[in-house]
Amino acid sequence: MQSFYDKLESIWEKNNSLVCVGLDPDAEKLPSALKAEKYPIFEFNRQIIDATKDLVCSYKPQFAYYAGCGALEELQMTIDYLKEVCPEVPVILDSKRGDIGATAEQYAKEAFDIYGADAVTVNPYMGGDTLQPFLERKDKGVIVLCRTSNPGSGDLQNIVDQATGKTIYMTVAEKAANEWNSNQNLCLVVGATYPEELKEIRSAVGDLPLLVPGVGAQGGDAQASVNNGKNSRGAGLMINSSRGIIYAFAKAGTDNVGEAARQATLELKNELNQYR
Amino acid sequence: MQSFYDKLESIWEKNNSLVCVGLDPDAEKLPSALKAEKYPIFEFNRQIIDATKDLVCSYKPQFAYYAGCGALEELQMTIDYLKEVCPEVPVILDSKRGDIGATAEQYAKEAFDIYGADAVTVNPYMGGDTLQPFLERKDKGVIVLCRTSNPGSGDLQNIVDQATGKTIYMTVAEKAANEWNSNQNLCLVVGATYPEELKEIRSAVGDLPLLVPGVGAQGGDAQASVNNGKNSRGAGLMINSSRGIIYAFAKAGTDNVGEAARQATLELKNELNQYR
Repeated sequence: MQSFYDKLESIWEKNNSLVCVGLDPDAEKLPSALKAEKYPIFEFNRQIIDATKDLVCSYKPQFAYYAGCGALEELQMTIDYLKEVCPEVPVILDSKRGDIGATAEQYAKEAFDIYGADAVTVNPYMGGDTLQPFLERKDKGVIVLCRTSNPGSGDLQNIVDQATGKTIYMTVAEKAANEWNSNQNLCLVVGATYPEELKEIRSAVGDLPLLVPGVGAQGGDAQASVNNGKNSRGAGLMINSSRGIIYAFAKAGTDNVGEAARQATLELKNELNQYR
Repeated sequence: MQSFYDKLESIWEKNNSLVCVGLDPDAEKLPSALKAEKYPIFEFNRQIIDATKDLVCSYKPQFAYYAGCGALEELQMTIDYLKEVCPEVPVILDSKRGDIGATAEQYAKEAFDIYGADAVTVNPYMGGDTLQPFLERKDKGVIVLCRTSNPGSGDLQNIVDQATGKTIYMTVAEKAANEWNSNQNLCLVVGATYPEELKEIRSAVGDLPLLVPGVGAQGGDAQASVNNGKNSRGAGLMINSSRGIIYAFAKAGTDNVGEAARQATLELKNELNQYR
């Protein structure tokens, strides 16, 4: 079985892209023509996938956008479709799970067995033991929140440990790299909106893959993300854009979701590749 | 609209109980007779609810146990049933959500509008701004992880802030009580397995309601939980037992799920009430 790291290395090479497309469809923002479909969200995603699958290193459906409107069936249809048309592109279920051991086992089943994702995002607040049921799935990726992209991320993540002099986010980064990653399947989330922290984290975790949300709508800088986040081989990054790609059609004043998404993905891909 | 705090106060008085029943059904552990049902998990829950609804202060279905076996329909059926037969008993969706603002809004919709829960558990790692979309729902409860019950909970939660000399869990407790609770709808999760920390947290948060998991299978002490966790009115606690109640039938060597659950709930209720 190919590991998640191997799958990432293959797609970085094949598609020559650091772009992760966030499939976070808000049902209210779809083109009106799609709203009449039986499965509007799936149809929207399908058009984006068809148009971008040779330009990306991963897709990241955000669980909340399906759960919040009762469309988990369309999440499943989306992942099934991805497995059918581009099985070489890793699928990250962005659900930020975290719970005690016995419960975390159920969440691992949800992400990997029910939905069939290649990787899942998880929250480290409850401690290392709560990550183990995910990490034990050797062929799957486990992407741990480290420094998140939102304005309030520093509330806890910036606190400095009296005993070590290290911030919480650096504590997570170092534990992740040095203690928790015995199966070589762990990655970290570091927001593009904090480029200095991205640099600090990269320097502490070797070539560990990083998922970097926050370029585009959240204001993160593409150049700084690549300069500060790339690993020793000029890769190691999944730079996520959601709104900037999936709603590119609205900005372009067209109903052609796929064509607008392709154009936006291509532009981001080329921009990021300049700095590798 | 009755607030979540008011709803809790009413049920503490009416049922004279601090017991929260965790509805975390593992499909593999159900009595064999139930496994043949079309909706075995719902049927299992229904028997427990029918037998215990006059003895509890809340029910807490754990999202993972439904999501991990593709039974979210039965989660919905369970909450719908609770609303039908005991609308006065608060329902906590234990899903430990946490994400950036726009996404957290979707999670608030999931918990409160799709499933119809009265409260949801949330994770504070990403910061105060990520809790706001939940807290803005004034009629709903938002139960923030503070000090969790698992063995590794200290990995991050015990770290002492160099600037304030306070642990992360006390930082969360104080921010929760003093900064985040402007709508008076926030509660905290504090594990029964850490009774000293429970005492410390209670002393810092006034009469704030606490959800206390970890008695029973996880080894938390009922007496210490009440002594250290009760508020100034001898209440303020939802003490959760899951496995000790829902699988009481197996321990009792019977297939009568309801009767065994009732007996176990009654015993826990009476034990807890001794120390109020």
